[in-house]
Amino acid sequence: MRTNRLEAFSDGVLAIIITIMVLELKVPHGNAQPSALLALWPIFSSYVLSFIYIGIYWNNHHHMLQATKRVTGGVLWANLHLLFWLSLLPFTTGWMGENEFGVWPTALYGLNLLCCAIAYFVLERAIIAVDGRNSVLARAIGLDMKGKLSPLLYLLGIGSALLVTPWLGIAFFAGVAAMWLV
Amino acid sequence: MRTNRLEAFSDGVLAIIITIMVLELKVPHGNAQPSALLALWPIFSSYVLSFIYIGIYWNNHHHMLQATKRVTGGVLWANLHLLFWLSLLPFTTGWMGENEFGVWPTALYGLNLLCCAIAYFVLERAIIAVDGRNSVLARAIGLDMKGKLSPLLYLLGIGSALLVTPWLGIAFFAGVAAMWLV
Amino acid sequence: MRTNRLEAFSDGVLAIIITIMVLELKVPHGNAQPSALLALWPIFSSYVLSFIYIGIYWNNHHHMLQATKRVTGGVLWANLHLLFWLSLLPFTTGWMGENEFGVWPTALYGLNLLCCAIAYFVLERAIIAVDGRNSVLARAIGLDMKGKLSPLLYLLGIGSALLVTPWLGIAFFAGVAAMWLV
Amino acid sequence: MRTNRLEAFSDGVLAIIITIMVLELKVPHGNAQPSALLALWPIFSSYVLSFIYIGIYWNNHHHMLQATKRVTGGVLWANLHLLFWLSLLPFTTGWMGENEFGVWPTALYGLNLLCCAIAYFVLERAIIAVDGRNSVLARAIGLDMKGKLSPLLYLLGIGSALLVTPWLGIAFFAGVAAMWLV
Repeated sequence: MRTNRLEAFSDGVLAIIITIMVLELKVPHGNAQPSALLALWPIFSSYVLSFIYIGIYWNNHHHMLQATKRVTGGVLWANLHLLFWLSLLPFTTGWMGENEFGVWPTALYGLNLLCCAIAYFVLERAIIAVDGRNSVLARAIGLDMKGKLSPLLYLLGIGSALLVTPWLGIAFFAGVAAMWLV
Repeated sequence: MRTNRLEAFSDGVLAIIITIMVLELKVPHGNAQPSALLALWPIFSSYVLSFIYIGIYWNNHHHMLQATKRVTGGVLWANLHLLFWLSLLPFTTGWMGENEFGVWPTALYGLNLLCCAIAYFVLERAIIAVDGRNSVLARAIGLDMKGKLSPLLYLLGIGSALLVTPWLGIAFFAGVAAMWLV
Repeated sequence: MRTNRLEAFSDGVLAIIITIMVLELKVPHGNAQPSALLALWPIFSSYVLSFIYIGIYWNNHHHMLQATKRVTGGVLWANLHLLFWLSLLPFTTGWMGENEFGVWPTALYGLNLLCCAIAYFVLERAIIAVDGRNSVLARAIGLDMKGKLSPLLYLLGIGSALLVTPWLGIAFFAGVAAMWLV
Repeated sequence: MRTNRLEAFSDGVLAIIITIMVLELKVPHGNAQPSALLALWPIFSSYVLSFIYIGIYWNNHHHMLQATKRVTGGVLWANLHLLFWLSLLPFTTGWMGENEFGVWPTALYGLNLLCCAIAYFVLERAIIAVDGRNSVLARAIGLDMKGKLSPLLYLLGIGSALLVTPWLGIAFFAGVAAMWLV
């Protein structure tokens, strides 16, 4: 299989996920005042956070595949596994937004981010296993500090949301996004 | 017609189908407890099964088109015919999930899988009819044991769902997916 | 502008239109019996008809663009104009299906098909105006009997739906689709 | 990063946005008379306006990227920033249409258009900062009168909607679209 078709399919799925999320931002019925918008701010801000996350994944995914030489059946399914967890983001984003960053929805959102991170790591390993330890990708990744730090921070965020306050959890999740943006 | 445009269009449709299915996983209203998620498990697990099926079809479809030389009007319509049955999967998946694997919804899901399998077989024959019995595709497929076994197992699954229990039907449908994954 | 990007964008929109239509086929709530499916037959059959129409447009659109040399601003907007009318098909299909082929919804469906046909004709003329009367496209189209007959048959179908019975209108619309398939 | 993958992803998102907007045009339930359509005219006409705007952005975006040589991380995020504001158009279009061009929804629609225009300007500057002041893009844009006039006209439209009447605001927004079409 060629890399470019895997890219094209992943791009398609990511483009749909990022756009479908906005459907959770439902048009308010029977209220044409600014107050209708104020009531939407939790859904809006969780949309912004997830939009940034999909952007980060699209960016990283693209760089990873550019350094990939061969796509095997295992790589293909590791990629679909990643897309699966990303496809759940509109759902967990919507639940968190609609419940105004409640305890359980925020923890579930963090769990979803954690699963995406793990799936990304598995995909990375699957590609390196095919291309070899001296491959372009293996060297480009190097120690991969961000990749190793992210799951830890997600776990801390989930724990904070459950035991302290969801806002601390959100701070962790937004912090990881900021770390990848810089 | 070039093969790559047929591929691109099919990729687009498959990417949308796989992502639209998650819209059936509706954000629970007025419940921010884990119990809201537990209530969703039939919809979630049927989503997982259909996600895997779309993944298998995308994978097989890609390998088939890579071995295809010429695309005629007949091949094009056989391809659209396959996409038609696949496009019904979000509906049958949603009906099965929402009714917690009831008798008729599970049987209908199996019928949908059966129609997809038949449409795939028809597409395969249409391509071989154009490219010839000694074509790359004809030789790559060989005896096509999996392709011949699948419709039979779907039929057994539909019968089991109707006459014994939907869970046996689901076991057949999950078994066919596992057979293609290995 | 290159032809292939116009193609890619049109393909994307057509793939989304064809898949979004299936969302009108709403999962029946609280009924897991075959009777729930029987109640859906008008929506299902109108979905099938529109699916075939989008398939025909995708097919013809592709052949037209393959014979196109240059894309100007005028051609681009003529193309968007066609996509606009096609994008309304999920709406008119849904209205017709939900009202079980009522008089006005069936007439509106025919009007939508008529607008698509006119937009397609305008696009064709725009391309020929750029490429010249002796261009590949101009010669490939020739007398374009089907293209000239279709709007007439749509008009007859709309009139039949309004004055006689919607079923005669449907017969005209299905007949035009059959004419293009053969 | 290659320009063509940025193009393909943006095309995908734009194709989905333009098609998803039509979902706001909800099939009227229990009314199969022309009056059901008349009630939809504000939603329909706001859909037409936004469809034209997405078409203009797609067109301009394409020409801009054709004149772009290098894509850096900054350009990538400036592009995602533009797609973010465009992805909100189905929401603001729907709110404006459903409230029949009410004061606040019309002003918000103008604000959304303003944000898109600013994001487009930021993307333009980001590309020129990478490619240089003498780049193809910098020279192709020139004084960019339309680009400088648009935000001003959006502001006038927002003010008119809030202080005079939404219809004057709509006139400004439609006027800007007409200016770009010519």
